[in-house]
Amino acid sequence: MANGKYERIGRELVKHGSIIDIYSDRMSLPDGREENWDFIDHLGAAAVVAVRDDGRILMVRQFRTTVSDYTLELPAGKRDRKGEASSEIAARELSEETGYKADKLELLVGFYTTIAFCNEQIDVYLATGLHKGEQHLDSDEFLSVETYTPEELEQMIYSGKIIDAKTIAGILAYLRRK
Amino acid sequence: MANGKYERIGRELVKHGSIIDIYSDRMSLPDGREENWDFIDHLGAAAVVAVRDDGRILMVRQFRTTVSDYTLELPAGKRDRKGEASSEIAARELSEETGYKADKLELLVGFYTTIAFCNEQIDVYLATGLHKGEQHLDSDEFLSVETYTPEELEQMIYSGKIIDAKTIAGILAYLRRK
Repeated sequence: MANGKYERIGRELVKHGSIIDIYSDRMSLPDGREENWDFIDHLGAAAVVAVRDDGRILMVRQFRTTVSDYTLELPAGKRDRKGEASSEIAARELSEETGYKADKLELLVGFYTTIAFCNEQIDVYLATGLHKGEQHLDSDEFLSVETYTPEELEQMIYSGKIIDAKTIAGILAYLRRK
Repeated sequence: MANGKYERIGRELVKHGSIIDIYSDRMSLPDGREENWDFIDHLGAAAVVAVRDDGRILMVRQFRTTVSDYTLELPAGKRDRKGEASSEIAARELSEETGYKADKLELLVGFYTTIAFCNEQIDVYLATGLHKGEQHLDSDEFLSVETYTPEELEQMIYSGKIIDAKTIAGILAYLRRK
């Protein structure tokens, strides 16, 4: 029925993945036609722009199978369980991946990473008042911590050395707001 | 074998979707253990920060099933065929979604939207020298065009009215570079 609206009239679970669940949705379009749309369910995540007292920002270098290479990104990780606050994820991932704890966490910016087909939402926090502790990586994480000035990071964004959307959005938001 | 590297030792096609193909990869980790990782294959896309001579930026409002709501985003679309240049996608989507053609297209910033599990890459172009023509939407697109000042858009990013990563990264990159 052409009711001028988009409506989901069916949803089939295609695959329960390791970090995502994949669905095929049957959609009714505003003109009454029907189509199958992909939908990916993700618990969401948080990332951290962690700025040391000397102004340098903590970055992690890790392997990404999507590009078959190591990438430089903000410390980040996904929600452990539904309902976990994004500030809690941010504090945990900062500590696990870099060993640092922060006196202060403020929300910088939040977004959906791939709004066309996935509900992954990432909140990016600014972390300040940093104190060094121990790294506690997940069992499949092997990553190294590096530090850069904001100006170096911005150059790396425009020269294609930083290629990760959450990292780019988070650093640019920090640069606009500081 | 623990060879200190990540290695993909198997890949199974889970589902050939409407805009994505979904795989389950068998990975060998640096310590020799094995895990299944999700991998989503996407042809890539382009988005456009289209700035009119009066300084206002063209935005599109469209339905997104991932959030069951209408969202405000940069004009954007995906690659029609492997090998299509991202500048070609940008020009086509700008014309189809807004009716505008641009005298000049310059690459602003490029990124992977969800580098943990999907190879979707988006290049964001700055479009200037705009001339109004006709909208030519895809058959399942029903969207409206709105215009905003860069300052209005930045406010909408921080107040959570713009929630799409490519739009946020593109607008912030434009604001930093203009």
